Amino acid sequence: MIIIMKPNASEEAVGKIKDLIESNGLQAHLSKGTEVTIVGVVGDKTKLQGANIEMLEGVDKIVAVTETYKLVNKKFHPEDSVITIGNAKIGPGHLTMMAGPCAIENHHMVLETAFAVKKAGAQFLRGGAYKPRTSPYAFQGLEEEGLKYMKEAREATGLNIVCEVTSLRALETSIKYVDMIQIGARNMQNFELLKEAGKAGIPVLLKRGLSATIDEWLNAAEYIASEGNPNIVLCERGIRTYETATRNTLDISAVPVIRSKSHLPIIIDPSHATGVRAYIEPISKAAIAVGADGLIVEVHPCPSCALSDGPQSLTFEQYQKLAEELQPYARLAGRNLS
Amino acid sequence: MIIIMKPNASEEAVGKIKDLIESNGLQAHLSKGTEVTIVGVVGDKTKLQGANIEMLEGVDKIVAVTETYKLVNKKFHPEDSVITIGNAKIGPGHLTMMAGPCAIENHHMVLETAFAVKKAGAQFLRGGAYKPRTSPYAFQGLEEEGLKYMKEAREATGLNIVCEVTSLRALETSIKYVDMIQIGARNMQNFELLKEAGKAGIPVLLKRGLSATIDEWLNAAEYIASEGNPNIVLCERGIRTYETATRNTLDISAVPVIRSKSHLPIIIDPSHATGVRAYIEPISKAAIAVGADGLIVEVHPCPSCALSDGPQSLTFEQYQKLAEELQPYARLAGRNLS
Amino acid sequence: MIIIMKPNASEEAVGKIKDLIESNGLQAHLSKGTEVTIVGVVGDKTKLQGANIEMLEGVDKIVAVTETYKLVNKKFHPEDSVITIGNAKIGPGHLTMMAGPCAIENHHMVLETAFAVKKAGAQFLRGGAYKPRTSPYAFQGLEEEGLKYMKEAREATGLNIVCEVTSLRALETSIKYVDMIQIGARNMQNFELLKEAGKAGIPVLLKRGLSATIDEWLNAAEYIASEGNPNIVLCERGIRTYETATRNTLDISAVPVIRSKSHLPIIIDPSHATGVRAYIEPISKAAIAVGADGLIVEVHPCPSCALSDGPQSLTFEQYQKLAEELQPYARLAGRNLS
Amino acid sequence: MIIIMKPNASEEAVGKIKDLIESNGLQAHLSKGTEVTIVGVVGDKTKLQGANIEMLEGVDKIVAVTETYKLVNKKFHPEDSVITIGNAKIGPGHLTMMAGPCAIENHHMVLETAFAVKKAGAQFLRGGAYKPRTSPYAFQGLEEEGLKYMKEAREATGLNIVCEVTSLRALETSIKYVDMIQIGARNMQNFELLKEAGKAGIPVLLKRGLSATIDEWLNAAEYIASEGNPNIVLCERGIRTYETATRNTLDISAVPVIRSKSHLPIIIDPSHATGVRAYIEPISKAAIAVGADGLIVEVHPCPSCALSDGPQSLTFEQYQKLAEELQPYARLAGRNLS
Repeated sequence: MIIIMKPNASEEAVGKIKDLIESNGLQAHLSKGTEVTIVGVVGDKTKLQGANIEMLEGVDKIVAVTETYKLVNKKFHPEDSVITIGNAKIGPGHLTMMAGPCAIENHHMVLETAFAVKKAGAQFLRGGAYKPRTSPYAFQGLEEEGLKYMKEAREATGLNIVCEVTSLRALETSIKYVDMIQIGARNMQNFELLKEAGKAGIPVLLKRGLSATIDEWLNAAEYIASEGNPNIVLCERGIRTYETATRNTLDISAVPVIRSKSHLPIIIDPSHATGVRAYIEPISKAAIAVGADGLIVEVHPCPSCALSDGPQSLTFEQYQKLAEELQPYARLAGRNLS
Repeated sequence: MIIIMKPNASEEAVGKIKDLIESNGLQAHLSKGTEVTIVGVVGDKTKLQGANIEMLEGVDKIVAVTETYKLVNKKFHPEDSVITIGNAKIGPGHLTMMAGPCAIENHHMVLETAFAVKKAGAQFLRGGAYKPRTSPYAFQGLEEEGLKYMKEAREATGLNIVCEVTSLRALETSIKYVDMIQIGARNMQNFELLKEAGKAGIPVLLKRGLSATIDEWLNAAEYIASEGNPNIVLCERGIRTYETATRNTLDISAVPVIRSKSHLPIIIDPSHATGVRAYIEPISKAAIAVGADGLIVEVHPCPSCALSDGPQSLTFEQYQKLAEELQPYARLAGRNLS
Repeated sequence: MIIIMKPNASEEAVGKIKDLIESNGLQAHLSKGTEVTIVGVVGDKTKLQGANIEMLEGVDKIVAVTETYKLVNKKFHPEDSVITIGNAKIGPGHLTMMAGPCAIENHHMVLETAFAVKKAGAQFLRGGAYKPRTSPYAFQGLEEEGLKYMKEAREATGLNIVCEVTSLRALETSIKYVDMIQIGARNMQNFELLKEAGKAGIPVLLKRGLSATIDEWLNAAEYIASEGNPNIVLCERGIRTYETATRNTLDISAVPVIRSKSHLPIIIDPSHATGVRAYIEPISKAAIAVGADGLIVEVHPCPSCALSDGPQSLTFEQYQKLAEELQPYARLAGRNLS
Repeated sequence: MIIIMKPNASEEAVGKIKDLIESNGLQAHLSKGTEVTIVGVVGDKTKLQGANIEMLEGVDKIVAVTETYKLVNKKFHPEDSVITIGNAKIGPGHLTMMAGPCAIENHHMVLETAFAVKKAGAQFLRGGAYKPRTSPYAFQGLEEEGLKYMKEAREATGLNIVCEVTSLRALETSIKYVDMIQIGARNMQNFELLKEAGKAGIPVLLKRGLSATIDEWLNAAEYIASEGNPNIVLCERGIRTYETATRNTLDISAVPVIRSKSHLPIIIDPSHATGVRAYIEPISKAAIAVGADGLIVEVHPCPSCALSDGPQSLTFEQYQKLAEELQPYARLAGRNLS
């Protein structure tokens, strides 16, 4: 931690800060500049918890030198993690394909979709049983009934199941049925839910918040890891910007940034990022080329009949075609579909 | 709802859409333009739930004409609402002052602060017992113990108590102690929590999400209202932008925008919006001048010792001075402090 | 300047940086932390121009301690500036009112508007002769002919004239007719234009760029000042965010931020910030309450006939009413209309 | 164009609008809804220039149906354009590689860099002679002297030359030396410069503004095209968002969006988009995979000595390696390096 003093800070003010730091068992290194004085703090910063240095007389600002997340930080865990779920591996060397409807609508469509995406090579079936919807009057999901259909689909196809949980209640119910839970963008900082997901120990797909910084995202992952659950996969799904040509703005640079800061796998959701079916294929190719560990794509038996997100869903044929076109990109990136 | 067809849309495609609309008991009005054809849909749109018109052949885009929120919509409730909590009224003609520490740290500081803000004219004591913190290693709050201190403070001072809830569990506990619950920015789209807050019937202070649109914010309020709870007060606390000179960017225009779209009261939080103590006074004056119904301000007996948000907290003396300086602005805006 | 080394930086790497700094006649202060080493640089940083320290082995990042702008920096010019233009003063103690049409459309409307805003108490007539328009097919302005109308309006009313310049050519022509030139949001980083405006010496109204940081804005002002022109007035006109309920998002906190960082006057443009006539009055009151030195408002004899920005323009009656309603706010803020 | 009336709009108000439209030789199609009435306008909208319909009694809002840009619009020019510059082609089937230093620093480094990037397969040498810099005290470029070095480099290597112009003066001088001019992000809406670039007829590399929408970007291109210059190449270089982990946020979706809206070629600038050397390789692969027509990359003989943007520049060896690694991606995308 670095403390930058104001240009006019008095000797006395600097002295008080030095004393405070040293009285907490840390060391203070002073650099007296022509305009300002800088104090470098050496030692365990947590000892300064509660001493609001920003508030002390003469202090201009504080600069943090180290990140607050530790367990998910690459500095302390240099090799990339590979998460194993059932027969699937998520991480370097593998390309994980997750696909399915935005919302689970009925028994038939789930099975139908499961067989179609399995045939195309997907390892995971996605589908929403608990839907976070902007309006209370929009379709809210089939809840436990939907989870049962998903479990059946797994038994019939061998696919792994991933479903979003939007509350502790949904979490408790879902872990009985699914292989991986998803914590969506709107709940990325629902810290109670993150802690419970950590305690549950089940693999978690953690989507980036609508306007979360990468630092906040990794701190959210740290909430899960700090409860003893290391099985975390990050998912970039676009951030909110002023541009309206796409539903969100995919921050594709987040992939190399995460690679440099964390050992966790990261996948991309081209469906929510763009909101437009025609953009999913080029964005999926870019996602593999940039180094993502996988893709989660919306697929629906009849997009024009979907109860939510129809315009960004692919038909079975379109998904089959996408999977085939991604093959050479996966090979180029040294990734196997398994 | 308006359906805009693509320039090259076939007669047949337009015909199919017309049929779909009419087969659902609605009317379709066609406008054949030189470049494109437009279809105006007349009738109850909910009948089209599930028919994803964007997906149909030849459709370019859909334009919504009416809002999805109804109960909080000014169109259907033209006179502004005034919420009564204990002896306080929130809405036109009143200036509601909420103040207190970001986090409840101990028994003494709560009582001390309560007396100080009461003396300065506040009607509400704020204080966090459940703290949403970016890092799992930061102070997380005293939880129920903190709520007990707040209740005591109410008994000692007669102040109304407002505390943030971050989960269903926190909600269940808090309603036993507080007069109003706060749903914070990070939980603005925690729909389960919104529904439960609606069922609980207790007054709710609903903060705007970090990057929520005003439309999403009003839909979040609709979740509460749709469960039968009309006692909702909105709170603008700054949105996330690229500017880093302040902690967030206060969207002061949100006040007149909300006035034109909704009948709910709206207050402003200058502490979280700016994150800088020196900016709180000018922003508070602006908040009253623009027509806000009140202010929620962070006050701490010793900001430099605060366990969270010290730099943006006011001392008792500073808050007393602020309250006095706001008096003439309140009079000018025709608002009484009660 | 502070240099933060990577956790694994070698002794040798640190040594090389220390040598580089000292060989440039500066001092290096080392703070060896438990995780990282920090190097504080003391002395004239410009001597390091060209030595890209970020690039050197072992360096993690650089933290700037001091701003790059000097002449407009409050640290080196503590008292607030008051700019005198004709009989008007812009700065503390004064409330400057600028008003007029977005675009100059004809001779008659300029004179008509000039008399109306003069009557309402404005000291400046604004009007666009050179219009920056998103589409090449939109009305581009009357250019010099429009400037002549403005000059006539000044002779008839005694109002000061402010007009936007969009190029060096427009600048050269305009200075023959106007009292103050405006550099608009789209040209805030048109550095050639800033330099020429500095050389011209004429007072400059410098609007904030669509997505400029306050730091970039002050550096743009520094371009003008560094050419010997101290007569600069800043204008906050809203920044670009994801919110679409208003044309832009007024960053009202920019006023106290500028007050703390610079001695230059700052006014607010509620017309472009909101884009909605109904929001201009509340925002104007807030602007005065927050401490702005003035307002620039769009007024048009017949907003429904305006060739640009009609929806955000006020009629003469509405402007007269606005000016009257702002009086008590100006008095409260200790500002005279002169 | 669609006019949406307010819920309470009177019959008379609707009638007046219908009359206005028809009196301008256009047709009005009414759709009376249960809540609101909608008026579809058919015919040449330019006839309504100056009639501010938003302002008329009873009008809620206007929805534009067609874009304002025509010449660069794919609707009116369905096949993608291929721009020929010297021996190079920019567009489908080709991968255009532009490389060179951010700023031209001296004669030697330009030649040295030219030979290096030529060897790696680049067809264009980039280099800044006129530098737009945030601070007036930062290196501003060698101007005409730098252009001479670039011309020499072309003669020595056969590379095409692209240089940024920041003013009309710079444009006039540059066209004597370069094959293509660049209009940078800060000048994307410097309309005078766009018009002159259009008149000059020289190929233009038009970078996206820091926070320009895709629609504004295409309108900026329309300014150039409307002056008779069809040789325009778009360049996505990242937009401004709240995320600070990268210098800007690359909007990679802009490539498929531009493909769907315009026939102009589009390239990507990974150097300015990320600002971090380590991210350039993965982003470049993604750029080719998503369908970009080329890349413009910063290369410097000694990045640690660069006078600007050192941290994002590649060494000759790194650029050579990048070019080789991109080969298979180019083949996969069906693009030749020529």
